[in-house]
Amino acid sequence: MSTVTFFTPVQEDIQEVEAFMRRQADDAHPEMKAALAHLLAAGGKRIRPTLVLLTGKMLGAPHDKLVTLAAAIELLHTATLVHDDLIDGSLLRRGNPTLNAQWSPAATVLTGDFTFARAAKLAADTDNLELMKLFAETLATIVNGELTQLFASKGFVSRENYFERIYAKTGSLIKMCSQSAAMISPTGPETLAAMENYGYHLGLAFQIVDDILDFTGDQSEIGKPVGSDLLQGLITLPALNYIETHPDDPDVACLLGGNALLEPERAERLVQSIRASQAIDLSLKEARQFIDQAIGYLAGMPAGIEKQALEELARYTVSRRF
Amino acid sequence: MSTVTFFTPVQEDIQEVEAFMRRQADDAHPEMKAALAHLLAAGGKRIRPTLVLLTGKMLGAPHDKLVTLAAAIELLHTATLVHDDLIDGSLLRRGNPTLNAQWSPAATVLTGDFTFARAAKLAADTDNLELMKLFAETLATIVNGELTQLFASKGFVSRENYFERIYAKTGSLIKMCSQSAAMISPTGPETLAAMENYGYHLGLAFQIVDDILDFTGDQSEIGKPVGSDLLQGLITLPALNYIETHPDDPDVACLLGGNALLEPERAERLVQSIRASQAIDLSLKEARQFIDQAIGYLAGMPAGIEKQALEELARYTVSRRF
Repeated sequence: MSTVTFFTPVQEDIQEVEAFMRRQADDAHPEMKAALAHLLAAGGKRIRPTLVLLTGKMLGAPHDKLVTLAAAIELLHTATLVHDDLIDGSLLRRGNPTLNAQWSPAATVLTGDFTFARAAKLAADTDNLELMKLFAETLATIVNGELTQLFASKGFVSRENYFERIYAKTGSLIKMCSQSAAMISPTGPETLAAMENYGYHLGLAFQIVDDILDFTGDQSEIGKPVGSDLLQGLITLPALNYIETHPDDPDVACLLGGNALLEPERAERLVQSIRASQAIDLSLKEARQFIDQAIGYLAGMPAGIEKQALEELARYTVSRRF
Repeated sequence: MSTVTFFTPVQEDIQEVEAFMRRQADDAHPEMKAALAHLLAAGGKRIRPTLVLLTGKMLGAPHDKLVTLAAAIELLHTATLVHDDLIDGSLLRRGNPTLNAQWSPAATVLTGDFTFARAAKLAADTDNLELMKLFAETLATIVNGELTQLFASKGFVSRENYFERIYAKTGSLIKMCSQSAAMISPTGPETLAAMENYGYHLGLAFQIVDDILDFTGDQSEIGKPVGSDLLQGLITLPALNYIETHPDDPDVACLLGGNALLEPERAERLVQSIRASQAIDLSLKEARQFIDQAIGYLAGMPAGIEKQALEELARYTVSRRF
């Protein structure tokens, strides 16, 4: 194994992106500035800006535009998290208090809106109209996905619905990272399509692994009960795989019978059944297939440390905490 | 007086804008589609799209881009109202139930976000990067203004603060209407600057008149108590003018003494004092001065029905319900 991690080639650029994001509320109300600082200090792995930077550096994108784009995407991501946490009433994210845990809903809504506005301005500053359209479309996809989930009847979903949902929730923005970085690079339509496909497959794998971790993760580490998705009536890939392979399990029959939400006892038993079953490995195998496809799209890319890092980033996605 | 109103030259275009806005949720979740239809059916005078269309037609902007731009701005306006009503807990707007009166806060936040996303996409569809930047900056200005008002200590504000506030709240978007329509027209920097100035002055006058109507309007017509701004501790131009001309009024002294919010009895007496004073006429005079300036900026514009309508629109702004 290489000791180089996928962050290595962009370590300094990421610092620049951080500083750039922080400055976005400099001319705003002091409370807004404090809120943005709080949000950014809470961190996150900065996978999205890393993906933008690696792709753009590999393809020769101008440095300043690349930093601007990386900040735009991370701020868009941050804005959606602010409104998400408000909607879910979540009080913690990554172990830190959410904005809505400390602020009024009004201030939280407005901080999210302001962060959207800043993200849109930075996206426009890359001077690329197609990128701007992609930015707006991605935001619409994410929000429409959230609303669909909000109104979805709980319980059984099809595989098709599941993939639509995870594309909207996670895949669309991760796809946008590599796609938009390619858009501001001096490159042709084939490379552009390949990097769009790389991000698309990476994004789906990323969310599948999150959904697996919801079953297999350590409760203290993921900060919510094991199987919390299913306990809340949200059917993800491990559950789908279990349902398909265990049609005779009475708890599955109960789900398929159209019970919107299983009784707690039944739901917890089903979580344990899924954990102990092949459904986890099956799901992981599907995620790995997406990652293999993602890496395949890198084949024609310029060799170098960034390409290597993009391969590592893809592999990391399916090796998280297993 | 001409029987032609300022809507006449754009009557058909406005219908096109309406239809275009409605289609923006066609590929979204049915609930989102219903929400947007509800919001658009609630109407409003469509002053902003009218202003976009009149300016663009006067200056020879391409028809399709103009309709797209008008829809983008009205949707941006609609999105800010959705979040505003949620924040204020308003249950009625223009006599119709607000979205938050019928929907959960979660669905309301997401509908606002979706409407922002669609507005941004349409703005990008005008294929003008400067316009896109202006769009994002205007959104940031509006939202930052709302947050500033949210955190502002109630009570006395300076004239300077007042004008900053009404620019953020209303002026910035109305300015954007005429400015952005000029941006997509085949025209030079002088015309662009003149139409920016026209919109800027029009926008300030528009909000001043709203603030006057809060004192002079019929309670049943404006749908809130007379003087509601002051009763809630919000100092607008009529109050500022009264304070400047009546420093010895004990209620004014109480305000100036730093009482965040006057006791109800005192506040209601002050509302009546302002209504009966010259402060109303003084404020109206200021609004009229802005309108005269706005009309002055039309001097070099191509003669025709649109220019005439833009003059009428400006005059209408200060003649509303007096």
